[in-house]
Amino acid sequence: MRATVMFGAGDVRVEQVPDSTIKLPTDALVRITGACICGSDLWPYASRTPEDAPARVGHEFVGIVEDTGTEVTAVKKGDLVVAPFAISDGTCQFCREGLQTSCEHPQAAFWDMIPDEGAQAEAIRVPLADGTLVKLPVAPDSALVPSLLTLSDVLGTGHHATVAGGVNKRTRVTVIGDGAVGLLAVLSAKRMGAEQIILMGRHPARTELGREFGATDIVSGRGEEGIAQVRDLTGGDGTHVVIEAVGTMPAYQQALGIVRPGGVVSRVGAPQYEEAPIGFGSLFRHNLRLAGGPAPVRAYIEELMPDILDGTIEPGKVFDMTTDLGGIAAGYRDMADRKALKVLIKP
Amino acid sequence: MRATVMFGAGDVRVEQVPDSTIKLPTDALVRITGACICGSDLWPYASRTPEDAPARVGHEFVGIVEDTGTEVTAVKKGDLVVAPFAISDGTCQFCREGLQTSCEHPQAAFWDMIPDEGAQAEAIRVPLADGTLVKLPVAPDSALVPSLLTLSDVLGTGHHATVAGGVNKRTRVTVIGDGAVGLLAVLSAKRMGAEQIILMGRHPARTELGREFGATDIVSGRGEEGIAQVRDLTGGDGTHVVIEAVGTMPAYQQALGIVRPGGVVSRVGAPQYEEAPIGFGSLFRHNLRLAGGPAPVRAYIEELMPDILDGTIEPGKVFDMTTDLGGIAAGYRDMADRKALKVLIKP
Repeated sequence: MRATVMFGAGDVRVEQVPDSTIKLPTDALVRITGACICGSDLWPYASRTPEDAPARVGHEFVGIVEDTGTEVTAVKKGDLVVAPFAISDGTCQFCREGLQTSCEHPQAAFWDMIPDEGAQAEAIRVPLADGTLVKLPVAPDSALVPSLLTLSDVLGTGHHATVAGGVNKRTRVTVIGDGAVGLLAVLSAKRMGAEQIILMGRHPARTELGREFGATDIVSGRGEEGIAQVRDLTGGDGTHVVIEAVGTMPAYQQALGIVRPGGVVSRVGAPQYEEAPIGFGSLFRHNLRLAGGPAPVRAYIEELMPDILDGTIEPGKVFDMTTDLGGIAAGYRDMADRKALKVLIKP
Repeated sequence: MRATVMFGAGDVRVEQVPDSTIKLPTDALVRITGACICGSDLWPYASRTPEDAPARVGHEFVGIVEDTGTEVTAVKKGDLVVAPFAISDGTCQFCREGLQTSCEHPQAAFWDMIPDEGAQAEAIRVPLADGTLVKLPVAPDSALVPSLLTLSDVLGTGHHATVAGGVNKRTRVTVIGDGAVGLLAVLSAKRMGAEQIILMGRHPARTELGREFGATDIVSGRGEEGIAQVRDLTGGDGTHVVIEAVGTMPAYQQALGIVRPGGVVSRVGAPQYEEAPIGFGSLFRHNLRLAGGPAPVRAYIEELMPDILDGTIEPGKVFDMTTDLGGIAAGYRDMADRKALKVLIKP
């Protein structure tokens, strides 16, 4: 079968690889009908060295079940399914609490940690299929599929940012980052009823989609300038919640500058730093809180899917480019150059 | 009048200073009948240099109102009152939300930031008396006064640690630090109904009081050894909440080692560091949260005082040494040497 392999920085190719197959009785084999390039794929795309071993890539997909192991009961051959970016058993204490990204099962993992599988491919072996896969109640060619595909990561991640931040009707929110996750955090904050939603971004097509998703204000400034603009919009106080959907140190510092005393910085962009200021002068003095992490998107699918099915939300609007596997290199390039917001792959 | 002045590391003296007086119509003048040495006073006691200007010290007290400015209505001459360690107006948006430590009033401050006043003294000028002072419904010689004095800081701070950590009946809690704040965090966690309360400390008299306050387990190990001991006590998972009541980097690192996925590190020890690990490998991977800060103890007095008045809790047990102002130098020395847990000063 054909699959995407990342060889080095800027070097992504489609290669012939061994067919994915069922290996364990809890596996399912899924023929992928829709996958994505994720903003987080751009970190290795920017930083891999030739010394790194070539890696399979992709962690967001929908597809049709082709085969199941003998112990799989939740899905069957022919089902259209979506998979979260984290594999989980659905039964351990953390899964039961809705933190499937911390599943205790030995096979639990993020797709990116599995060397011989990736979603930017024709097919994929899904471990712990009963815990991981969710059946989609639409036909594979439904116009809703792009929106349902966002349940695999970006919509659930945007939603998680608002859950971790405690967004409600009395909340003012700033979202740092106009990528797909940032925009879907805007949509999620709107869905939770946030009073004010400030989107920090400077890419006009994206901020326009942000307005459509519910942003009440757009701030194009960065750093001190952006902080001052947000403070101007909030009577000087900043916002109760700041969703940091980038993952860089400047984005974190920006968040510290605009969070209201007693408020929360909710991070869903994987941090590209380890040490950061959290002492008296940054977080401590005004009881600022830090929350977030990899979204347990599996926990949110049942809640979010009905809003997609009935048309209340259209998160699939983040896809502004569609390609087959052959166009994957161009897709990465366009996302890295910010020409494409999010690329939908139809293998 | 006589007041405590810190001249340098290890150099605390009682000096003759100008009498405190009413300066503004919102001030009250309080004759101090009980004050404390705080664990946080030991940081400057350890680190001040002769180049630092001499500083008045002390931020926890009860006393009797001697005089009030013309605009003060909440307390009157002769009232026994307690003051939180932060001055607040009680009317701004943050005070109304219960975050009096972020009060917006220009006179709002921590006592430690006011150069010409301090609570380890015979008297003190209290700015914003209506917002700051709370009348105590007992006689000045009541046996309850030591416990009521803890409402000024350590009890409210221990309580804040549990509030910020979200402690409830389903919560397992670890408290790092067997100082007065750590012990009162244990008492507070017990009061919130926590299922398990692990106290990390190695001073037998203190951990014994910790047991009396509600600790279910004592862990004497530090660093990796302590982390392993807590993990042994929690089925390998760590606890939902870790209260960090020390403020040092080793204490923070210990907290990271014992907090359960999805859990909270609640800090109430003023951090003696600014940068610390919060990236993918520390906080982010398992959705760990960071909370806490200077406790808005003013917000908690109405809730906590009844439990003291009816004898449900006896936080005053943290005082194991009492002195007059003349014994203040010995009090500092004994607290720094961990011979005294907490010193009560009767000026």
